[in-house]
Amino acid sequence: MSKPLILVTNDDGITSQGISVLVKLMSRIGEVIVMAPNSPQSGMGHAITVGEPLRTKENRLFGEDIASFECSGTPADCVKIAQFQLPKGRRFDLVVSGINHGSNTSVSVLYSGTMSAAIEASLDGTPAIGFSLCDYSNQADFSHCEDLVVNIAKQTLEKGIPRGIALNVNIPAKQGLPIKGIKVCRQTNARWGPSFDQRKDPHGQDYYWMKGDFINLDKGEDHDEWAIGNNYISIVPCQFDMTGHHGIRQMNDEWDI
Amino acid sequence: MSKPLILVTNDDGITSQGISVLVKLMSRIGEVIVMAPNSPQSGMGHAITVGEPLRTKENRLFGEDIASFECSGTPADCVKIAQFQLPKGRRFDLVVSGINHGSNTSVSVLYSGTMSAAIEASLDGTPAIGFSLCDYSNQADFSHCEDLVVNIAKQTLEKGIPRGIALNVNIPAKQGLPIKGIKVCRQTNARWGPSFDQRKDPHGQDYYWMKGDFINLDKGEDHDEWAIGNNYISIVPCQFDMTGHHGIRQMNDEWDI
Repeated sequence: MSKPLILVTNDDGITSQGISVLVKLMSRIGEVIVMAPNSPQSGMGHAITVGEPLRTKENRLFGEDIASFECSGTPADCVKIAQFQLPKGRRFDLVVSGINHGSNTSVSVLYSGTMSAAIEASLDGTPAIGFSLCDYSNQADFSHCEDLVVNIAKQTLEKGIPRGIALNVNIPAKQGLPIKGIKVCRQTNARWGPSFDQRKDPHGQDYYWMKGDFINLDKGEDHDEWAIGNNYISIVPCQFDMTGHHGIRQMNDEWDI
Repeated sequence: MSKPLILVTNDDGITSQGISVLVKLMSRIGEVIVMAPNSPQSGMGHAITVGEPLRTKENRLFGEDIASFECSGTPADCVKIAQFQLPKGRRFDLVVSGINHGSNTSVSVLYSGTMSAAIEASLDGTPAIGFSLCDYSNQADFSHCEDLVVNIAKQTLEKGIPRGIALNVNIPAKQGLPIKGIKVCRQTNARWGPSFDQRKDPHGQDYYWMKGDFINLDKGEDHDEWAIGNNYISIVPCQFDMTGHHGIRQMNDEWDI
């Protein structure tokens, strides 16, 4: 049986440490193709590039045996163009994104370029996973989670996930104790409050740096922030259908339509 | 009773025709503040600006009576900074985004800057609506939908929508026949297939323009593409919780965790 074909991408850019770890781990279980942004794309959400052209450039950043390309676009662009460049009839068996330097729990899934790549892949039913380490350091230690990352990718290939689902996997930062295990979770009900640092430039004009205060409103113990806070890996299965069906019911009952 | 406070934003930029129509219509029912991008932001998804500073600049584009600001950031940035700049204790009663020049039905909600602004507003429970006209022309005719846009905004304020919901409203392009009415819908199961126009630059290097083929897989008649195709306004209530709960069940049943 041929090895599964795995696309690796990310949002921190092709030279980040997290993607090199993910390429190494995925090479244990499949044939890897890399298509990743040529510059950091954090916070890009599900942006795509429609108003200007895209470029790709082949490199050998991950050794002679791994086909690797940098792309001028966003993470979602990378998935689209990698799918487009595959020979006719071939498909990716798995798309993985990351490992992101920093958490993508809760509502951060909306802002996350890492997850937008995974969700883009899920649109045609390709199994997809976004991996994030809850450690923002560029020199973060990934050694405590390597076997678990491989395990999650293998189970996605072998046991499967429902069609159209992308997994949002968050991994606790390395601590004294080993990770306790894996929790399959719902998305935490939390948000980033609007918070800015207001400054004056040398010409006396105001400008603003976004900061953001994390506001966790969720008292449950079945959500991803809870899992990370208790030293578990969290997996939230994410769907691209954003319909709030309870809203359809309420509007059909109460509105004049 | 004081008038409701309404934030108007968009993704086509503050000088587009669509936002000027929306500002005019919202002024009929509330006190309007405008905070919109100073350049077009189509396809920006839920991008936010974390790696560089933001600027805002007051203008009087919509007359002396309307507080109006242009912002250097994305639609989601505009909502955050407008919330931040409100005097302490004040909140928007409604956030509206658009009117977008072009459709945002189906999975386009993921790529849409128009809808990302509405979803950003919904995160703290502010009622929010993204309006899109299914006509990409910069000189599009909005006259056939003005009363319906006002009606939808008024009902959102008066009858309400569930907390955390943002409405994705799409409006058929002006045709010979008047719009038949409003349908509250689910998101169409469709996607944009990866499609690019591959060209060579004057230096012989390849570049790519994203095109995208719309692939509609949905045989139902209760979704937004169906409504638009049948000359109805579609309203999809959208939620920011992307959890696919059926995925939690399957993984807990079938995976080794």
